[in-house]
Amino acid sequence: MNRRMILNTVGKMILWEGVFLLLPAVVALIYREACLLPILLTAAFALLTGGGLSWFCKPKDSVIYAREGFMIVSLSWGILSVIGAFPFWLSGEIPSYVDALFEIVSGFTTTGASILPDVEAMSRGLLFWRSFTHWIGGMGILVFVMAVLPNVSERSIHILRAEVPGPVVGKLVPRMKDTAKILYLIYFVMTGVQILLLLAGGMPAFDAVLHAFGTAGTGGFGIKADSLGGYSPYLQWVIAVFMLLFGVNFNLYYLILIRRFRAALKSREFWTYLAIIAAATAVITVNLHGASGAWGESLRHAFFQVSSIITTTGYSTVDFNLWPALSKGILLVLMVIGGCAGSTAGGLKVSRVVLIGKQIRRELQKLLHPRSVKSIHFEGRPVDEHTLTGVSSYLSVYLFSFGIVFLMICWEPFGFETNFSAVMACFNNVGPGFSAVGPLANYAAYSDFSKLVLSFAMLLGRLEIFPLIIFLSPSTWMRKKV
Amino acid sequence: MNRRMILNTVGKMILWEGVFLLLPAVVALIYREACLLPILLTAAFALLTGGGLSWFCKPKDSVIYAREGFMIVSLSWGILSVIGAFPFWLSGEIPSYVDALFEIVSGFTTTGASILPDVEAMSRGLLFWRSFTHWIGGMGILVFVMAVLPNVSERSIHILRAEVPGPVVGKLVPRMKDTAKILYLIYFVMTGVQILLLLAGGMPAFDAVLHAFGTAGTGGFGIKADSLGGYSPYLQWVIAVFMLLFGVNFNLYYLILIRRFRAALKSREFWTYLAIIAAATAVITVNLHGASGAWGESLRHAFFQVSSIITTTGYSTVDFNLWPALSKGILLVLMVIGGCAGSTAGGLKVSRVVLIGKQIRRELQKLLHPRSVKSIHFEGRPVDEHTLTGVSSYLSVYLFSFGIVFLMICWEPFGFETNFSAVMACFNNVGPGFSAVGPLANYAAYSDFSKLVLSFAMLLGRLEIFPLIIFLSPSTWMRKKV
Repeated sequence: MNRRMILNTVGKMILWEGVFLLLPAVVALIYREACLLPILLTAAFALLTGGGLSWFCKPKDSVIYAREGFMIVSLSWGILSVIGAFPFWLSGEIPSYVDALFEIVSGFTTTGASILPDVEAMSRGLLFWRSFTHWIGGMGILVFVMAVLPNVSERSIHILRAEVPGPVVGKLVPRMKDTAKILYLIYFVMTGVQILLLLAGGMPAFDAVLHAFGTAGTGGFGIKADSLGGYSPYLQWVIAVFMLLFGVNFNLYYLILIRRFRAALKSREFWTYLAIIAAATAVITVNLHGASGAWGESLRHAFFQVSSIITTTGYSTVDFNLWPALSKGILLVLMVIGGCAGSTAGGLKVSRVVLIGKQIRRELQKLLHPRSVKSIHFEGRPVDEHTLTGVSSYLSVYLFSFGIVFLMICWEPFGFETNFSAVMACFNNVGPGFSAVGPLANYAAYSDFSKLVLSFAMLLGRLEIFPLIIFLSPSTWMRKKV
Repeated sequence: MNRRMILNTVGKMILWEGVFLLLPAVVALIYREACLLPILLTAAFALLTGGGLSWFCKPKDSVIYAREGFMIVSLSWGILSVIGAFPFWLSGEIPSYVDALFEIVSGFTTTGASILPDVEAMSRGLLFWRSFTHWIGGMGILVFVMAVLPNVSERSIHILRAEVPGPVVGKLVPRMKDTAKILYLIYFVMTGVQILLLLAGGMPAFDAVLHAFGTAGTGGFGIKADSLGGYSPYLQWVIAVFMLLFGVNFNLYYLILIRRFRAALKSREFWTYLAIIAAATAVITVNLHGASGAWGESLRHAFFQVSSIITTTGYSTVDFNLWPALSKGILLVLMVIGGCAGSTAGGLKVSRVVLIGKQIRRELQKLLHPRSVKSIHFEGRPVDEHTLTGVSSYLSVYLFSFGIVFLMICWEPFGFETNFSAVMACFNNVGPGFSAVGPLANYAAYSDFSKLVLSFAMLLGRLEIFPLIIFLSPSTWMRKKV
């Protein structure tokens, strides 16, 4: 294992976290807030340790394999969270370090689950940092660093694979670095357009930027006690549509960018994603209409929540915990499905669901005609068996992990609905669940142990489980000693 | 498709149901109960229609393929349930036909979920029929008929495959018919031994027979309001141990029968099954001890419930719905795991869980060393890829079906825990769930629609989903017209 290369890359990540922390520092400076000092201290610490680590651990060669990729991603996400929690804790705005860690892991993993009893009491500098981690974590901090660093090895595909969600991760263009750049360019421009549209609707600039961060990363940290309930219908529509857009595979936008419209429109995953959203919105609208009355309002709330939950963002315009059980059941299923692969959304991903459906279909044919061997096609190409077993293994490991995490927190005295939906919401990076962890509630009541377990579940969901298992498996560490 | 062969076989099944119905008729006669007439009427109806159907539909040839096997199994289980519900309904002891159907499907599928508000008010004849369906459904009614009928085609392996649960179904001995006979012989002897042990503990004969039926089929229909809570600890231990025994793959007993002890003891599935039971019992015992006090009692209740739930039987000695949340969480996970393949238990089956674990492990290795291709070994043999994709497809289709069934009943106003655990308990053929469908409660409060959906879920669980999907898929019926 190329240890020096791992430490060097992790060092660079920490260094970059220090750079990122300068932005909330500027915000704190503008609003003359006391959180400026803790933020600057953390930034200085990150710049020094990160710079030192990458300086002293110069790799002899930049060759890395899959194992190194998984190690780099796991370590970076872990360490960045540990450091990123400092400002909350040092400033005293979140007195418990475990709470601060939960909050920042929730930020980086774009979960949006919070332990804050009163979000409106937070300083603007820390609110900015909190939402900014969504934006960084959404597209991936390592992808970002690859985009800006010189001399990125083509080997870094292993890092990209470990960090970008979905069953197949490819390069858009021959060079790794250019792929990362294009992804961030699209991400940047779309975030900018959303900010402009929110400003046009009269949202204050600070709110607009933070909500755009939360939308782009499909994170969902709000800055008001009622999430987006207090904003105008126009603003709610803008955010609902942009959540949907950020849940689409970014390859599609790249295809549009290079004017291959026909190829872009052929995506089976995209249409399935839209169809699921349309169907869920329709059923919930009718369900809500029966309970409340106005069609327009029911449609807006239904579409907003569906878009928010399937993309695993977690914003809300109403307390959907009070919705009829059928609507809640649909939201629960959407949490598992998640957005498209290669987007910033969490969950299983629509492409995996489609591939699983195709595998079931093939299995049925195999049962009837044992000798027929059919290959599965997806997005106009045959899917190799390697990818297919990868998808089913992912589903299996997803269930296993889900079961273990659930067993670890199910003893908490909040009832089955709360505990189950808490694991659902954290594991799929959604944020709010139902009952005691509903959209207007928070995770503060959980024990420190459970908060750590749920934080780990968020990382499992964001990094798609395998990197962390490999990181934690004894064989990885045994070899290191050799 | 060989339609005549399908109808002929289904006819024989109906005929046999008529024969089976004579047993509860004898019971009703002994106790001079009013349910005698409805039972005899149903028996006569079954004998006439079944006899007529198999008489008029003489097949020209007995060649059947997988599709016919799935059709026969789906049709038989459906029709036998529809007819088997008559005595409850005609006698007026269950006034609603949908309720009667739910009860008998729950019987045949060895689920044990009941809609009876007061089981002790039922006549003995119908109680006998109710528990007897567990015994028939446990090992499989088609397997039984294969064992007793002359001229069983070797082609019937397709029926065995569709009815016997587990990822791999093989013959114990070269001839199909002998395999079926051996299975039923073991089943019969073990049931007999259990009855004797129960009688030795002072259980009344009627109770002993019915509880042995419920244990052997891992069904769980009780005949007392508090299930087994009122019986002595000795009787509870006997039933706990026998539930465990009936959850073991019957191939193991065959190996013991032919004195291949070493081969029997090598079964990885068996040891995993025991290890899961031991671990779950240990944790729950400690958990209960903390809540109540006496170690011996905690151990007995813990072991009984673990054995009952993992084998998906559903008997209870206490109201485990009142247990601490951790213990309930463990029981929920056990429901999904289920017993061993080739036993009478439901759930995913331990062998599938083991194979899924091995697939995850292989996937991890593949991620690290993409070019390494390792074959998976299980029970001392390499497992072919066909079986492995079958296992992962089963997990996928299990989840899909679970989600759909859950969405169809989640609107019921009993809360998330009740609805979720009801689907869990019916789909995995367990019986009791938590909260409003806990071990001392029943399913009577559900709407007729939901009762039908849950009945279908029980059939899906018992027949392992695929046969019913093939039966319901349009292509099956389109071809028929050709």
